[in-house]
Amino acid sequence: MRRSGLPESISRLIGELAKLPGIGEKNATRLAFHIFRSPKIYSENLAQAILETKTKVILCDTCFNFASESPCYICSNTDRGNSSICVVEEPLDQLAIEKSKEFSGRYHILHGVISPMDGVGPEDLRIKELITRLEQENIKEVIVATNPSVEGEATSLYLSKLIKPLGIEVSRIAYGVPMGGDIEYIDEITLGKAIRDRKFI
Amino acid sequence: MRRSGLPESISRLIGELAKLPGIGEKNATRLAFHIFRSPKIYSENLAQAILETKTKVILCDTCFNFASESPCYICSNTDRGNSSICVVEEPLDQLAIEKSKEFSGRYHILHGVISPMDGVGPEDLRIKELITRLEQENIKEVIVATNPSVEGEATSLYLSKLIKPLGIEVSRIAYGVPMGGDIEYIDEITLGKAIRDRKFI
Repeated sequence: MRRSGLPESISRLIGELAKLPGIGEKNATRLAFHIFRSPKIYSENLAQAILETKTKVILCDTCFNFASESPCYICSNTDRGNSSICVVEEPLDQLAIEKSKEFSGRYHILHGVISPMDGVGPEDLRIKELITRLEQENIKEVIVATNPSVEGEATSLYLSKLIKPLGIEVSRIAYGVPMGGDIEYIDEITLGKAIRDRKFI
Repeated sequence: MRRSGLPESISRLIGELAKLPGIGEKNATRLAFHIFRSPKIYSENLAQAILETKTKVILCDTCFNFASESPCYICSNTDRGNSSICVVEEPLDQLAIEKSKEFSGRYHILHGVISPMDGVGPEDLRIKELITRLEQENIKEVIVATNPSVEGEATSLYLSKLIKPLGIEVSRIAYGVPMGGDIEYIDEITLGKAIRDRKFI
């Protein structure tokens, strides 16, 4: 699209930026202007980082996390437990769980959730590869840490039906009132979930 | 900043993206992941557009709008009136006014507004260059089309005080209820302005 009145180059940059998720035409224009006004070194660094991400970042052949080499530093770490796999939707989820320091096993990144509305079926995710791992590695438990969304729940259910027949335990992380949360301000769905999943003490 | 657990390249891309205005660390991460997952051709096009914007886009020496060559296509258009200059904050404002088809004179882009809070003074804007134009060209009216913000008003006032002594008329575009707007839903400041600036009919 040619933005009438704007120079060709900046118009093209707006077009490319507007293809990014969550970046509309207006926002893309603001960003393009900013890039134009930034020091040359910034645009060079940005362009280089974009190109390097495509050339230097790969997916780990085992867990499918972003990695510089395969197997990744987690899959190749022999100090970590190898009897449980934590399944997450995205690499960022893996990072978040790793930060909690509560899990020291292996990970498996699905790269999405089953979402028929968005045309994403099980075959679009790294589910087949997960099953292959479960058949080859000596895994005792799969912890499903998908998001508490309709799609996350559906994916969790789908995985559970697939994995349980293999004689492997499947668990789901707990969902409820977040620590430090104020019950007064917690939405009713979370509260409902927290009450249904209450633990006797 | 090294985002622990993420490959160096993607971490650096997140860092560069997060320097863009309105893009936080979280958003930058989402964008970086998207770029990683996009076809290689997209990242190449994006990187190239970024670099070309810095090398091929210039500012018109006369009006300081973005341009591929100087003078820009508006400043070099002899069909346009040359007795009035419309002063705007940003290139996008110029585009918007041009689209209205109500103005066929010249433009002058300030590249910002006077904003002491952000450390932007008159000397940071293209005001000196505007005055030079007014002294050299045969301008009869300057239409100030800065935004209806505190800074826009202050800049407008500043320009007016500077330009009037040159014997040139200074006007400000009208601010009020937008066409098609619903009075019920217009904020009280706009409505107040619309009432104060009412036109007898």
